[in-house]
Formats: sequence, structure tokens, C-alpha cells
Amino acid sequence: MALHMSSLFLRTLREDPADAEVPSHRLLVRAGYVRRVSPGIYTWLPLGLRVLRNVERIVREEMDAIGAQELLFPALLPKEPFEATGRWTEYGDNIFRLHDRKGAEYLLGPTHEEMFTLTVKDLFSSYKDLPLSIYQIQTKYRDEARPRAGVLRGREFVMKDSYSFDVDEAGLDKSYQAHRDAYVRIFDRLGFHYVIVEAMAGAMGGSKSEEFLATAEVGEDTYVHCASCGYAANVEAVRVPTPDPVPLDGLAAAHVEDTPDTPTIETLVAHLNERFPRDDRPWAAGDTLKNVVVMLAHPDGTREPLAIGVPGDREVDEKRLGAQVEPAEVEAFTEADFTANAALVKGYIGPGALGSEGSTGIRYLLDPRVVEGTAWVTGANEPGRHVVGLVAGRDFTADGTIEAAEVRPGDACPRCDGTLEAARGIEMGHVFQLGRKYAEALDLKVLDQNGKLVTVVMGSYGVGVSRAVACVAEGNHDELGLVWPRELSPVDVHVVATGKDEEVFVKAEEIARELEAHGVSALVDDRRGVSPGVKFKDSELIGVPTIVVVGRGLADGQVEVKDRRTNERRSVAVDDVVPTVVAEVRGTASVAGVSGGTGDTGDTGATGATATDGEA
Amino acid sequence: MALHMSSLFLRTLREDPADAEVPSHRLLVRAGYVRRVSPGIYTWLPLGLRVLRNVERIVREEMDAIGAQELLFPALLPKEPFEATGRWTEYGDNIFRLHDRKGAEYLLGPTHEEMFTLTVKDLFSSYKDLPLSIYQIQTKYRDEARPRAGVLRGREFVMKDSYSFDVDEAGLDKSYQAHRDAYVRIFDRLGFHYVIVEAMAGAMGGSKSEEFLATAEVGEDTYVHCASCGYAANVEAVRVPTPDPVPLDGLAAAHVEDTPDTPTIETLVAHLNERFPRDDRPWAAGDTLKNVVVMLAHPDGTREPLAIGVPGDREVDEKRLGAQVEPAEVEAFTEADFTANAALVKGYIGPGALGSEGSTGIRYLLDPRVVEGTAWVTGANEPGRHVVGLVAGRDFTADGTIEAAEVRPGDACPRCDGTLEAARGIEMGHVFQLGRKYAEALDLKVLDQNGKLVTVVMGSYGVGVSRAVACVAEGNHDELGLVWPRELSPVDVHVVATGKDEEVFVKAEEIARELEAHGVSALVDDRRGVSPGVKFKDSELIGVPTIVVVGRGLADGQVEVKDRRTNERRSVAVDDVVPTVVAEVRGTASVAGVSGGTGDTGDTGATGATATDGEA
Repeated sequence: MALHMSSLFLRTLREDPADAEVPSHRLLVRAGYVRRVSPGIYTWLPLGLRVLRNVERIVREEMDAIGAQELLFPALLPKEPFEATGRWTEYGDNIFRLHDRKGAEYLLGPTHEEMFTLTVKDLFSSYKDLPLSIYQIQTKYRDEARPRAGVLRGREFVMKDSYSFDVDEAGLDKSYQAHRDAYVRIFDRLGFHYVIVEAMAGAMGGSKSEEFLATAEVGEDTYVHCASCGYAANVEAVRVPTPDPVPLDGLAAAHVEDTPDTPTIETLVAHLNERFPRDDRPWAAGDTLKNVVVMLAHPDGTREPLAIGVPGDREVDEKRLGAQVEPAEVEAFTEADFTANAALVKGYIGPGALGSEGSTGIRYLLDPRVVEGTAWVTGANEPGRHVVGLVAGRDFTADGTIEAAEVRPGDACPRCDGTLEAARGIEMGHVFQLGRKYAEALDLKVLDQNGKLVTVVMGSYGVGVSRAVACVAEGNHDELGLVWPRELSPVDVHVVATGKDEEVFVKAEEIARELEAHGVSALVDDRRGVSPGVKFKDSELIGVPTIVVVGRGLADGQVEVKDRRTNERRSVAVDDVVPTVVAEVRGTASVAGVSGGTGDTGDTGATGATATDGEA
Repeated sequence: MALHMSSLFLRTLREDPADAEVPSHRLLVRAGYVRRVSPGIYTWLPLGLRVLRNVERIVREEMDAIGAQELLFPALLPKEPFEATGRWTEYGDNIFRLHDRKGAEYLLGPTHEEMFTLTVKDLFSSYKDLPLSIYQIQTKYRDEARPRAGVLRGREFVMKDSYSFDVDEAGLDKSYQAHRDAYVRIFDRLGFHYVIVEAMAGAMGGSKSEEFLATAEVGEDTYVHCASCGYAANVEAVRVPTPDPVPLDGLAAAHVEDTPDTPTIETLVAHLNERFPRDDRPWAAGDTLKNVVVMLAHPDGTREPLAIGVPGDREVDEKRLGAQVEPAEVEAFTEADFTANAALVKGYIGPGALGSEGSTGIRYLLDPRVVEGTAWVTGANEPGRHVVGLVAGRDFTADGTIEAAEVRPGDACPRCDGTLEAARGIEMGHVFQLGRKYAEALDLKVLDQNGKLVTVVMGSYGVGVSRAVACVAEGNHDELGLVWPRELSPVDVHVVATGKDEEVFVKAEEIARELEAHGVSALVDDRRGVSPGVKFKDSELIGVPTIVVVGRGLADGQVEVKDRRTNERRSVAVDDVVPTVVAEVRGTASVAGVSGGTGDTGDTGATGATATDGEA
């Protein structure tokens, strides 16, 4: 049954909503797809729900195709399993917590690792039951500190999450690859541009972890890529190429120098070049070792100082640091903290005060570039004094390394001789070799072929389903409105009746009815007393890819078919319009069809990734 | 793609779960459809999710068919709209409440009246936009005091809720009737026996309100029906036929009598018959007026005593009373309460102490049978004393009437001369003329044809979607397991391969593949090394209506087709099995087909309400 604008629960807006920061948010609200209820919490109006269901269908089809089985966990989850894995505490303020009338504690599931793991433990017990991949498409909750951009980062949102269960790593590799392949198909069908980047593997380091990022300027993720070798990684996951160590033999001794009023790298470098000029090359920021102290706030409420040593020409990147110290949160080191650690001389902090061997004992981690044998100008832990030629591995050591320094365009590619470029994206999917973390925490074991209990190895795979709607909108719009890829569009065809002639409305209905009979869904703009201009504006805003205008030309047996993407219009004989449009929607329109033929040649059109079947 | 028992995420249980009270709960857990996470909170395993989706599909098809439009509200809702309607307080302990990281208060939506009303207010503003019916199929939350019977009464559950919006009552009547008709079609398709009963209209009294109850002994609702006229009503909604008033002229005067040690109706009647025998007939419990005092706990925390006068041969029915005083809850009147109201003499409470004119001022409501001119024996508000011949309307009055006395089988039908019978049912649907309650509270007005603002009139319509799964199971099982109606079954056909012969497994796969090619979904029991007995038991437990057994007979070109409902088995030539089964599943099997023909005659079978199309 065709939808009708005269009765559709829809109101389009000419003005942008005040809180809309990004185009997708602005247009999805203006075109009547979603409506805000509370920060990060949205209602899906009829057109929006249709798009959301289309995304779900694509995800479901591709998950089913790799043999993953769908189930559905509750969103309201008891505290206990999350305590067993430590996540009840780790999540901090990021989850919604509540208690029932009896005082039992619950949370609204942000992800369901615990439930998947426990349910497999409950049902399965043998290697013969594996491999297993199970998934759900479900409403999830996160109490984001900064919900933003409409459904792009909501507090109530729909995700597809799946988990694979295997007896060994070889099995996990297969399950991982199957999911990765399915994700490629899903994102190809969704019709936006994306990149697959290496991602943080988390605490279980060494396992594979990749993110699917939709390329978008409004994205919150920054990734780098190398044009030479194709390497791509979320900045959080970039591993800096480590230089070879320098032999310690023959390196000059370190010496402390007066460097008054040089609390910044800039003042220090100027001072060095003025007072201690070098023959071969001037001092540069990269010759200095900057020691930054932060405070880590652990989920259990404890606080711990952390010092990070990076070459002075680089800042500490908040996100990279944050990813490394998760689940702890990074806070500023306050004046009060300096007071409590009197051996730290602000602006002149050096390795001598840091690390397990240092005077403060504060944990000290170094950028991987600070390899053995490299010499640095760095703080001497006295006001107005620095030490010159302090050699790593000879004059100081640290408690380890950390990938916290900023990654910059032009940095060396960690994989080839090329250099890195930076871009922004929106995380749309994540495939991740989770390993045995949850299986161990919740004791998920199966009997192997030899009758021995082995801990199951898991993979974790997520797609942001509601986010995908925003993401597709972000990648498919123009200044007039949305432009849906066929497979996502709320309906296949928008039939607009214009003018006052009753015959026009009758014919528009007839065309819609015939389209529906061919399995092509239609939205008819059957509003009386609404000007053609308003109707065209609405159709452009709503963004159905094919628009059929039934108007004045009908008297001459002509209707207009408009391609929303190119805004090309062409006149089609009214008797040809249904077969023409059906072929176009099914992606079988030949070039002849596009230029006005009946489209019955059956050629596959060149619509590429957004070509769709007629069953949407 | 056919499902396979060897890889299906399923474990059937031979033992009943310890907490299972009713057959549907027992069987849905044992057959691996649902799994408990927490009280009243369940996971839908793959087979269960398929049944749930089938229910959703049926509901969606029938809602779409009446032009209702689907949308989706969030489950996490801000407090403010619920404060505007008073429900934030009214719901008391029955809702889950929480707050976000900034301290803003939220609830998990138990129903969405506020959201529907506000969204219509947000989008629509004219009579031209109406009528409108919108619905969602959504996860809802109620913190039930006693979650029970698995998914029959859960704390997280799926409901379809719709609301209609009209400018006037005539429009509401049409919308109501359209929904009622759709519900009849939905419940016919769901395949369980149900009755439509009159229900409480709530605070807005006078509007239409009907419930769809699945008839089931395990049901929590009691309803009465009249075999003569077809009247049926939830006991809560039964209105007692009111007798005509009796002329007061000539009625004997009341007189107080000593009735020592008669604190109960039984002892009082015995005493009356012994000390004050009547000529015409003995005293009976129905001659006495019993005054019951309870305490009402209002949602705002205040408590208020309430006295109810009922004929002494009837108890006050807790549920009927509860429905009348909603949202207040009924609590016992404690010894402390008696102490605080010294004028109430326990066991001897009479009208003189009650009502706005009585010595205590406690609100006093009478059973509708206590009409003007009726004479009663009732408490004299002194220990061991009763008053005889106290005439309603002459000697005492009350503050109103209340429908709180028990309804009993054999009671007079309120509509005809017949008598009422009682039965139990499960509330599966509710259609309700909500009126203007929410539109007034939230100021939903539209401009009418004369340009005047009028308050919109609403209807409210709900279907318990997840509950329906339990309800269908409750009405469709035998001692061996579940027996799904075709349209609800997780798959259309269960193909069981038995024995060790490889050819059997190959043929079973081939049959499943061919069935799927015909749009008939299949589950193949392809487990090796599992005995035929276990496979048969599992197939009976799982309850797919048609079971094809491929086993020893294959050597002779025969397979067995079993009807799960009748447990009839018949031998079918292996080459005929696919057309036979396809016809059976589509409900087009002729009698010839059932007795072994190919089913290609195309006759519509006599499967009635559970006949289904082949596209499930």
C-alpha cells in the first residue's frame, strides 16, 4: 500500500533545528525522519523507521549468509555478570544504572559480552558445538558525556553485535575473516565511503582489531593512511616505527646547565641556540625530551600520577593516551598535585625525578623514539636548569614505553618508506579478536577432542545500525536535502501530483498502485491546495532517489521522471513510466531506458555498489 | 537457508526448570526458545526469536492494513512529560526509574501515552491532519511485584501500542472499531482461543473499553459471561444490576438489639435466628450489611481510610476494589488504624460511624444493591450490638456507590435474564476509548473547520507481543511438547534424518533445499550419532507442525510425514514429499493430498484460522 503525503505522520521543516551541528542531523530532523526526545535520545518517525529497518535488513541478510544465528538479549541486565568481569566498575559514569523495587542492581546494557559468554556456557559444552557465531540487533544504552549530532552519537541506539566462539586461534581467524568479509558486503551495500583501519587491540594486545570508518569530516575518529602501501590505522592504534638503538660507547657525558626562564620548549631551544650553539646544526625542539605529568583516575576511585616522556617537538595526544590507559581516565595534574609532589619542578621536570628509580617514584613511560643511546636536553629537576646530553639507557631508564605522542601528517609510515596522511571518519563497525578475556572471567570452557577442558576463544564484531542511518545521510545529501541510496530509501519512488486537475491525482494514484503491484514501493504526494514549489522542495528534502512528477504535461500524455542524485529530469510517456521506473529501481535500466525507453532490455545498469534488487 | 540441529544454538532439556509454574513456561524453556536472565527478564534464543518475529509480523500486517503508521519511540524517557500527566507519581514502584550522569531523572517506558500525545502535538495542528493512527512495536518495562510464568508476565517485554487521534467522538468510534476489527484478525491468526470482554473504562468512565482475553486456566484475569445473551466482562468491569428502590412509606422503624459475641456474619445470623426468628423466612447473610474498612495508599504517599458496605453474603473482591480506586493501592486497616479511629468498633461497625455525616467522617461507599428503601441488619457501633431494620435512604446515606463486591457464578446477567458463568483468561489485547485525558494534560489541540482550537480525542490500543508467544504455547501443546500453529512456527518443516546411512542425510538435505526453494523454511536434524528416539523427542518438544522423517524406509523409496498436532504419520513416496509438504504448509492440501496425493489440486484445505501463506 502506497504511503500518502496527505496522511503521512510527517511535518517537514524549512528551518534547521537549533541544536543541529552536522548536515545529517539537520536534514534528518528537517525531513521528518527523527525527532529529539532528550539529549541523545530520539524517536524514529515513519520515514526514519523505514530507513532504520532497511539497514537492519541488510545487516541481517549478510550475518545470516555467514551462518551467524540471531537471538535477542534483554537490555535490562543484572549487575552480577558485569561485576565478575570488572566492567560494572570500569564503565564508571558511562552506563545507566538502576535498581528494582527490591533493591537489586541493574544496568542498561552498553554491550553484551557477558550475556553472550554466559549463554554459550549455559547451552554448549563440547568442541563439537563450535564454531558458533551468534548475533543480535538490539537497542543499547550509553550515558555519553557528550551526546551529539542526532542519532550519530546517541545515548539510546541500535547496534548489531555478534560474537564468535572457537576452540582455538585458527578457528578464531576463520570466524574473524568471515565477519570481516560480511562487513565489507554490508558497508558496500549501505552506500557510503569507508576505510578499514587498524584499531586498538585493547588490553589483550597482539590480537587483530580493525575498524570500519565512514570517511566524513564530521567524524570523531582521526585515522592515518599511507598512499604508498595502503596502511591505514586509527591514530590511537598507530605504532611509531622504533629507531635502532645507538651504541653507548663514545657518547659524551651529560652536563647540567643554567637555563634561566626556560619553562617551555620554545624558550629552551632559543636559549640553547644563543648560549650553547652547535656546529653541525641548530638546536631544535626534537632534541629535547619533554616530560608531561598527568593524573590517572581509575574506575575504583583511586588516582595515580603518570609521567610521559616525548620528544619536545610533539604534544601528548589526549585520545592516544586515553586509549592506552583505559579504563582509567586522564585528568590534569593540578597545582595541588604539584604541591604534594615537591620534587617535581614545574617546567624543569627531568628523568631523575621520575620512574621507579626516580626521586618521586612516579611511573614513567617513554615515547618509543626515545631508544637506548639517544641523547636529550631535558629538565634537571631544579628551577632554571636543564641537563644536556642525557643518554637514554645510560643516564636514565623508564618503566616502559607508551604510544601517546601525537601522530602527524608526514610522519613515517610504520610499514613502508612512505609517509602518513590524516583524515577523519565515523566508526561504523569494529571487528576484534577478543581472545579469552571474557571466557576466562566467566569460565567458559568446552571439552576438546581429547576430553580436556579448554577455554573458548572469542571474537567480537559490532555495527552501529542507527548510527548508519546518520552516516548514510552524512555521505548522501546536497544543499536541497537527503539523497538516499536505493537500498536504504524509505520508499522506492516518490510520485508527486501537481496542479488542480483531478485527473492528475487519479493518474498519480494509478501509477503508484501499478508500481506497488510490481513490488516497487511508492509515496504519493496527493496533497490538495499545496503549491508545486512546496511539493518539490519536500521531495528534494525527503530524498527518495526517483521522483515521478505528474502535472501539466499529463494532458499531452507525458510525466516527468527525476533523478534525485543528479537532479536530471526527463519526460516519459505516461504509459511507459511504470516499466521505466521499475527497471530503474531494480537497477536493470539500460542506457536506452534512461533516455526514455521502456527499460525492458534487462541490461544491468552501472549503478555499482548502490544497485539494488527489487525486493527492498 | 535451512537451519541445522548440528549447529543450531539450542539445547533441549529433559527436565522442567525449577521455577516454571505453567506449561508454556516449562516448554518454552525446555525446547530452547527462551532463557531466563533475571526475574521476569528473558533472552530470546534463535527459535524463540523466530516465533516472536512471526507474531510481530502478523500484528504489523494487520495494523498497516487499517492505515496505522509505524514509528518507534525510545524506551528511556525523561521524567517531565510523566510529571505533567501525574503518572510519574501514580506508577509508584511499578516503573524503573534512573538518572543520568548529570542527575536528570528518567524512566523506562511502561506505556507511551505521553510520547504519542506530545509527538502529535509537535507535528500536527489541524483537523485536516486527522484522523491519525500511529503505533510502535517496542520493548517496554514494568517493575512487576510478581513477575511470573516466563514471558507471560515479564519485566522487560514487547508490546504493540497504538493510539488514534480524532477531532470528535464520532471519529474516535470509527478508529476504535477499525482497531477492534484488526485485533479480531490478529488474534484469529495467532491461533488461540480468546474472548472479547468488557473492561474497566478507568477514570474517564463511560467510554468503550474491551479486552481480548486468551482463555486459559493459568490466566490471571477472571471474566464472566452469559450463555443467554453473550455478555462477557472482566470481573473488574461487571456492573451489578441495580434493583429498583423500595418506597420508604410504611417501613418498620429500626431498633438496636443486644447481639453479644457476633463479630462475624455467621455468628450474627445464627444469633438472629435464635433470638429474633422471623415468620416468613429465616435470617440469612444477605439480610446483613457488612462494613469493611480498608486503607488507601495514594501514590503521593498519603493514606486515607475507606469504608465499603456490601451485603453480608458477599466478600469485597480485592481486584474489583483495586480497579475502582486506582491509582491508589489498597492496604489492610491495621490495629493501629483502629486505635487511631476509636469510634470504629471492630466487628460492629455500622453506617452511623461512617460517611461524611458519620462520627468518624471516613468516606463510605455502598454496593449498588443497597438501594433506597432496603432494610438491613448492621453494626450499631457498640460492642455486641447490632441495629435491625436500618433502612437505606431513610436511616443512613453514604458518599456514593462502589463496584467492589465479588461477582459469583450464578449471579444475574446485567444485560438479560440469564446468569453469569466465570472463567479465567490472559489479557492479550486492550482497545480503549481514552478520551481527552492525555490531550488535556499535555494540551494537544488542533484547529477545527471553523478555525477554533479543539482538544483531540484519543483511543488507546495494545497487544502483548512477547506475551502472545507464551499464550500461543499455552493454548497449543500436549504432553510431548509444543505444537505451533503454522503461521507462528519457527520453521515450516522439521526434517529428521535417522540412522547411520549416509544416503539418508544426503536425501534429508536435498528435501530441505527443495522446500526452501519453494519458500518453505526447514530445520534439518542432521546430527550424527544421536539416536532416533532423541531426535523424535526433540522434534516433538520443539513443535514444528510438519515433521518429515527420512530413515530406513528410504531404501524402499519412502519417507514419513508426521502431523505434530494429531501425531498421525503416513508414508509418502520420496519423490512426492516436497509437493505434498509444500501444499500442506500453504494450506492448499486437498483431502487427496493428505492421504498421500501430490497436493497439486489447489483446493483450499479446511485448516481455518491457522491457514497461512507460503511466505512466512
